[in-house]
Amino acid sequence: MNMFLKALFILYFCIMKIEIINIGDELLIGQVVNTNASWMAEQFNLAGFEVVQITSISDTFSHIFESLDLAKNRADVIVMTGGLGPTNDDVTKEALCKYFDTTLVFNEEVYARVEALFKLRGFKMSEINRKQAELPANCIPLKNIHGTAAGMWFEQDNQIIVSIPGVPFEMKTLVSDEIIPLLLKKFNPGIIINKTVLTQGIGESALAEIIQHWEDSLPSHFKLAYLPQPGMVRLRLTTRGTDRSKLQNEFDVQMAALQKLIPELIFGYNDETIEQIVVKSLLEKQMTISAAESCTGGYVSHLITSISGSSGCFMGSVVAYNNRIKEKMLGVSAETLLKFGAVSKEVVIEMALGVQSSFKTDYAISVSGIAGPDGGTEEKPVGTIWIAIATPDKKIIANKYLFGEHRGRNIRKAALTALNMIRKEI
Amino acid sequence: MNMFLKALFILYFCIMKIEIINIGDELLIGQVVNTNASWMAEQFNLAGFEVVQITSISDTFSHIFESLDLAKNRADVIVMTGGLGPTNDDVTKEALCKYFDTTLVFNEEVYARVEALFKLRGFKMSEINRKQAELPANCIPLKNIHGTAAGMWFEQDNQIIVSIPGVPFEMKTLVSDEIIPLLLKKFNPGIIINKTVLTQGIGESALAEIIQHWEDSLPSHFKLAYLPQPGMVRLRLTTRGTDRSKLQNEFDVQMAALQKLIPELIFGYNDETIEQIVVKSLLEKQMTISAAESCTGGYVSHLITSISGSSGCFMGSVVAYNNRIKEKMLGVSAETLLKFGAVSKEVVIEMALGVQSSFKTDYAISVSGIAGPDGGTEEKPVGTIWIAIATPDKKIIANKYLFGEHRGRNIRKAALTALNMIRKEI
Repeated sequence: MNMFLKALFILYFCIMKIEIINIGDELLIGQVVNTNASWMAEQFNLAGFEVVQITSISDTFSHIFESLDLAKNRADVIVMTGGLGPTNDDVTKEALCKYFDTTLVFNEEVYARVEALFKLRGFKMSEINRKQAELPANCIPLKNIHGTAAGMWFEQDNQIIVSIPGVPFEMKTLVSDEIIPLLLKKFNPGIIINKTVLTQGIGESALAEIIQHWEDSLPSHFKLAYLPQPGMVRLRLTTRGTDRSKLQNEFDVQMAALQKLIPELIFGYNDETIEQIVVKSLLEKQMTISAAESCTGGYVSHLITSISGSSGCFMGSVVAYNNRIKEKMLGVSAETLLKFGAVSKEVVIEMALGVQSSFKTDYAISVSGIAGPDGGTEEKPVGTIWIAIATPDKKIIANKYLFGEHRGRNIRKAALTALNMIRKEI
Repeated sequence: MNMFLKALFILYFCIMKIEIINIGDELLIGQVVNTNASWMAEQFNLAGFEVVQITSISDTFSHIFESLDLAKNRADVIVMTGGLGPTNDDVTKEALCKYFDTTLVFNEEVYARVEALFKLRGFKMSEINRKQAELPANCIPLKNIHGTAAGMWFEQDNQIIVSIPGVPFEMKTLVSDEIIPLLLKKFNPGIIINKTVLTQGIGESALAEIIQHWEDSLPSHFKLAYLPQPGMVRLRLTTRGTDRSKLQNEFDVQMAALQKLIPELIFGYNDETIEQIVVKSLLEKQMTISAAESCTGGYVSHLITSISGSSGCFMGSVVAYNNRIKEKMLGVSAETLLKFGAVSKEVVIEMALGVQSSFKTDYAISVSGIAGPDGGTEEKPVGTIWIAIATPDKKIIANKYLFGEHRGRNIRKAALTALNMIRKEI
């Protein structure tokens, strides 16, 4: 088979097709944004499968049956979420029983897991929870380590139907640890190489202009996706083929070319976060950090402490929302506050030095700004943020930023920018 | 017609069914979260229509044809988004032409609007943009004031098919200003009343047991949905009918019965958040608050400061991740820390009193616990959290909680629980 046919073969015949069905009236009344669907679609695509359709349907037998019948015409694998809770409005398990013309059977192993979960949390198990251990007789249970509803794996007529809970973190662990490994064991999706490049400090269109020439010259079996988020843009480069070492070489060449174009904008790769990188670097160097936050209101501290192990480097912070607290807890002088205002270079520098010295840490971050929607002036409009960082060698860096008008985004952008400033120094 | 038949008539014959079809490969690779779908679903539901299915499909003729054919069996109205851009990967307009067996016709009015838009933005119009004014001969154009792609309204066999752009702010204006008014002119969706009850402090299944009798006795034209989130469960009660005052009375009776069953669990309604309610109550009473956070690491402060206007009541906080900081910044005694450990009733009480006195606030919150995944012991397993609140009248309430094993959820649950404790006191 020549290369062209081989590529065609891979592209059209080997890629297993997955359909995602999200069950729940809350999706159809618009009360919940379907973040499950996009997360699952991303994971399945990364693993080399093609998602052919995503369907949100109601918690009714007839709609579940109809969707399954139709999805079977389009996909090899159907992954359903939702409707597995213990309450009356959840009907997926019963619907699947009827669909496969089988009955519920009590599963000892699942029961033991649910019981252990309740014990751990100090709750008493009720009759309703006991029912969570009853599963359709023809399913293989999938281990849900975070919740009481087991995943269910069915095989019929060369097709696979999987049903898992819709609670996001239960769903995520089931997809990553159970479903994708099982699918990869069953199907060979070909060789896929991908990497997500994380950038901070530039918008999507400005970034696109810088890398346009590189992007246009990518071979046709490469794909680039822009994934903008508040405060960062992720770039995902993907390629697919049959010869791993050849493909890896090609990929490395393209990745190196990209890295050379935007070295100062890249802060990490794949699923890393800035806060993870900062915590990891500090732990490696056995250095400590503290923060003095005004407009970010604790969000910098929250990002750092969301990382397990951060207690090894993060001593703490002062959220000084009020100017009196900036004086009393951080030692910012009343004169500086009066002369330059709370949102100024002088104040963030005093805040950073204040927390660094009283918390006795190697590094310190400080942020003061106008998050909005009110409080802006002509001179200092909403979105004006000052950030300072203090380093162990007594260096102080203070930068001014002008973000947008949206309070939540300003807080997030300020915190990520502050962490990225620290990352560059460590 | 007796009441029962009338209700049946309303339930089965009068409610117009809408299906949403979102077209775009970016949805199927998980590049974009489908926020359009939930926003549209909410708007259509609030206007009295029922959304029967939401489907994300690829930019291909065959998939568009298949989805339209299937949707016609389920819905009276099909609203499609996406695939209307001027580039080659957008095929919706051509697909609709073929579907209705018609041709593209140049529309003067649409052209004038596109031209004016370009003039306004100071851009030159290209040939590709001129094509945006070509529409299928059988459609009624819908005015898109924000972009170059007109909406398209088709009627066939008593069904309505609408196609609009997927750019969120273009889509939103078209739905609110064009589609919903046109639909309301054509159909009378009846009266709908709904309210979402927000509860904290109990899990979904325990809640279901408490209200089971009430739920089971709801009249058939009422619907109850459980919407669990980390740290809270939302309950949405909906009813529909023809006589507004009668319906409102019935609804009030049912709502009052629910409120009577779980008065201490309800913290708010509809889109409110605990942090909003806390900030609002404090501002109303002109009272202030501060926080001393250990395991929540700044998340309590972040939730409070995410509310615009919180600077009027929130003075600040100390994130005392390290015990040394608990001593130095909050005045927790070394002896207490040694004797009882950082995760103890005694320490959270000293933390709350410490921050209340040094920040001079009316209320204070403190949290100390083991967020995990490491750091648990047999006596104090991961998920053990102590929370204390101090009130203006020198009252101290300290509670111990045992949450789960997931770090992020423990942090969120602890913060929400702490805010709810404060809410009850204010």
